[in-house]
Amino acid sequence: MSRQPEKALLDALKALLGPKGFTQDPVVMAPYLEDWRGKLKGEAAALLSPASTQEVVAIMKMASEAKVAVVPQGGNSSTVGGATPSKDGAALLLSTKRLNAIRAISPEESCATVEAGVILSALHEAADKHNLRFPLNIASKDMATIGGLISTNAGGSHVLRFGQMRASVLGIEVVFPDGSLLENLRPLRKDNQGYDLRQLLAGAEGSLGVITAASLRLIPKPHSKIVIWVGVESPSAALALLRHLEKESGETVEVFELIESSLIELVLKHIPDTEIPTEKAYPWYVLIEATAFSEDFDLEALMVNILADATEKKEILEAVIAQNETQAGKLWRLRETIPLAERSEGFAVKHDISVPVSAMPSFIEQESRAIQEKFPGTTVLAFGHLGDGNVHFNVCPPKEVTDQLGWVENEGIAVSHFVYERVMANGGAISAEHGIGQTKLADFMRFGNKTKIQALKAIKKAIDPQSIMNPGKLLPVEQAE
Amino acid sequence: MSRQPEKALLDALKALLGPKGFTQDPVVMAPYLEDWRGKLKGEAAALLSPASTQEVVAIMKMASEAKVAVVPQGGNSSTVGGATPSKDGAALLLSTKRLNAIRAISPEESCATVEAGVILSALHEAADKHNLRFPLNIASKDMATIGGLISTNAGGSHVLRFGQMRASVLGIEVVFPDGSLLENLRPLRKDNQGYDLRQLLAGAEGSLGVITAASLRLIPKPHSKIVIWVGVESPSAALALLRHLEKESGETVEVFELIESSLIELVLKHIPDTEIPTEKAYPWYVLIEATAFSEDFDLEALMVNILADATEKKEILEAVIAQNETQAGKLWRLRETIPLAERSEGFAVKHDISVPVSAMPSFIEQESRAIQEKFPGTTVLAFGHLGDGNVHFNVCPPKEVTDQLGWVENEGIAVSHFVYERVMANGGAISAEHGIGQTKLADFMRFGNKTKIQALKAIKKAIDPQSIMNPGKLLPVEQAE
Repeated sequence: MSRQPEKALLDALKALLGPKGFTQDPVVMAPYLEDWRGKLKGEAAALLSPASTQEVVAIMKMASEAKVAVVPQGGNSSTVGGATPSKDGAALLLSTKRLNAIRAISPEESCATVEAGVILSALHEAADKHNLRFPLNIASKDMATIGGLISTNAGGSHVLRFGQMRASVLGIEVVFPDGSLLENLRPLRKDNQGYDLRQLLAGAEGSLGVITAASLRLIPKPHSKIVIWVGVESPSAALALLRHLEKESGETVEVFELIESSLIELVLKHIPDTEIPTEKAYPWYVLIEATAFSEDFDLEALMVNILADATEKKEILEAVIAQNETQAGKLWRLRETIPLAERSEGFAVKHDISVPVSAMPSFIEQESRAIQEKFPGTTVLAFGHLGDGNVHFNVCPPKEVTDQLGWVENEGIAVSHFVYERVMANGGAISAEHGIGQTKLADFMRFGNKTKIQALKAIKKAIDPQSIMNPGKLLPVEQAE
Repeated sequence: MSRQPEKALLDALKALLGPKGFTQDPVVMAPYLEDWRGKLKGEAAALLSPASTQEVVAIMKMASEAKVAVVPQGGNSSTVGGATPSKDGAALLLSTKRLNAIRAISPEESCATVEAGVILSALHEAADKHNLRFPLNIASKDMATIGGLISTNAGGSHVLRFGQMRASVLGIEVVFPDGSLLENLRPLRKDNQGYDLRQLLAGAEGSLGVITAASLRLIPKPHSKIVIWVGVESPSAALALLRHLEKESGETVEVFELIESSLIELVLKHIPDTEIPTEKAYPWYVLIEATAFSEDFDLEALMVNILADATEKKEILEAVIAQNETQAGKLWRLRETIPLAERSEGFAVKHDISVPVSAMPSFIEQESRAIQEKFPGTTVLAFGHLGDGNVHFNVCPPKEVTDQLGWVENEGIAVSHFVYERVMANGGAISAEHGIGQTKLADFMRFGNKTKIQALKAIKKAIDPQSIMNPGKLLPVEQAE
């Protein structure tokens, strides 16, 4: 168990980090202590903003010696409270915002070496200048940092083709809880020298150490891109279309986002300047983005052929191909504004879940009905990454409910337990891409595989025996022995 | 520290496993006790061949209770003695050969669920029947098993496009040292529920548990394939060609194998019915294989264009495109028979090393010279996966040496230390794809990152506190406390 920091420790940290790196000012600290959705509020003894890896080493050595907890924070865009400290105020909050150098971009190596606090969109821009691309993309790209993206093994819209964040990590620099520094930034495509710590740190949610920098794989920019919007009858038809596309166009498909029509209706209602691009309305839509790397490859001709064939096979009901960047932007806007439109409409019990891809269509269809039977009057809104078997599965309160927030707070746990039971019965995961953090911890302990949790606890204890690294996130705080 | 098994344990194992699953017959055991290159010989108290996951669970519970070591073995094709027990004869050798069911192949899921003892080529054939493909390929495909491939995070010729084994593992079933069973075979593309144990087990060399089954990602078979042989001036020219191909043809390139001309001369000398496919001889050659997934994509036309452009840019000196399967087979044979040709020629000090891709050309050129200066008369033969920054870097004894094996045994350590020092100075790894096992353990402890080794030891102790899982492989046996 970690301890409350004493004045001597705080004074030493203040001396180490200087005024830019150390503060206890409540006004300055406030935005760091609250999660971005404003649902969770924590306290911290101080906000530390180290400017170098060596300062992080010094912080962890001091914290470790004093048995004081450290909560690392990147862009503070966690949806599960992964970077919000607990209310006891005993922890030091360590922001990586000043570790924001892009140390190197090497076109020869197709690699970027960046510090943990670099914002995703800044990496996108820096790679672009070298005619290269970092393919991971998420809605919070202007907030999320590289350290946070690795620590949460972030996903997003392009996982289908490029994998989650872990797939792009070639090297890592990390400070362990005892202050020891692992310098492993060499961008090695192959390194079979024992357990891959890069892969262990990816998705560890800051519970095993502080990532200070990483070497990331870049890829060439494509020659051409196509954005398509299709109307389909059902999730099953959408999956048939995806398999058809994969078979006939290989790895050209980067994005395949399934969206229920009622979500598009919410977008039309709440977001100005939006419209359904198809002539008619359909029960489900799919946003597709595909790219080609060769100028000799006529991507549009190929897609037109496949879509014609898919129409004949009744996989799709109507398709629209964006003719320019503006039209492509409008199609993307329909997908990207869904969370905003949902929030404008009211509150819902949200779930970020996965099941095997082939089970997803029947899961959406059957479990939506089952929930509506169990909780009469509710509506299920599903959208997300069908090709990854990952949907955001949101349950909205009955229309007659006036206090939506109250309903979510009162009924939320029962609804979520029902959803998670169905997820487990379908061989799925209760967190597909958001992680466990603090808000999913109880459900992870309840629904998670017991043998796995036991192994996770053993690893946590091995690397962080004092339980000072982001305690209470991902795994419960162990009682003192 | 593990103990010698007592008679009661052996009797209980015999009763559990029956005559097909338990033997102490030295004749039957002999091939399992020797590594496939005949360099290492170990001893074991018994050979166990469980026929089910439940039998593995029972074995591990009994072994764990008795503190007896267990050495898992798949196809016994390790090049680092990873599956050969020590000479003390205290361990139980656990062969996965009877865990050889292909439990399911799901075209809907693009996934195969197979037991650990399934041979790689059997999986290739099974996937092929469903018009699907498992893309990992290595020379020992008729020996190597799925369990071994995961445990060693195997590489091979197609890593450039499809990654190492870890990239294909969607689900895993593993028995931990205490006999607890983790059933995690659900083929989830996304699962952010804590540290990814699939990724920790991949490359753990059987030191954390016994993998009994896995769910593996399959991909569609390509529409077209092209095999090309080119002559180039130098490794730098080869790398320029690779970057050129990646830029203009995207992810079509699956194989890009760099080969020094003297190795091809050895092949011509020792392997019947082989010839240089180009009109002239060149200092270096590259074997390229590329595929396209769409029938609308004229792969040959694209490659002809790129090769013409590359010739103009002096990246290549001559290119030959295989016109049919027979010709393609002949080109592949030149690459695949290199190890056999090398063995026919004599002994060498071999190294499976990696450095960052962009550093590989200068590494090969400079370090070959440096070695020949330091060890006069030696010849360096380099070949391998340039796009992965991984070459097999073999140092042959001076021509006047008659006792080659004696030279390798006497000079080997000094040569390897010199090579590994240069690898570390270039930010590389002393094991790119073969792992550590027992033969590279001393060098890993000498050259490996000390902070990393400390973390690895902590994880090992957390999961296998009695040190009974494949002791002395990957990490040294810890002294009793």
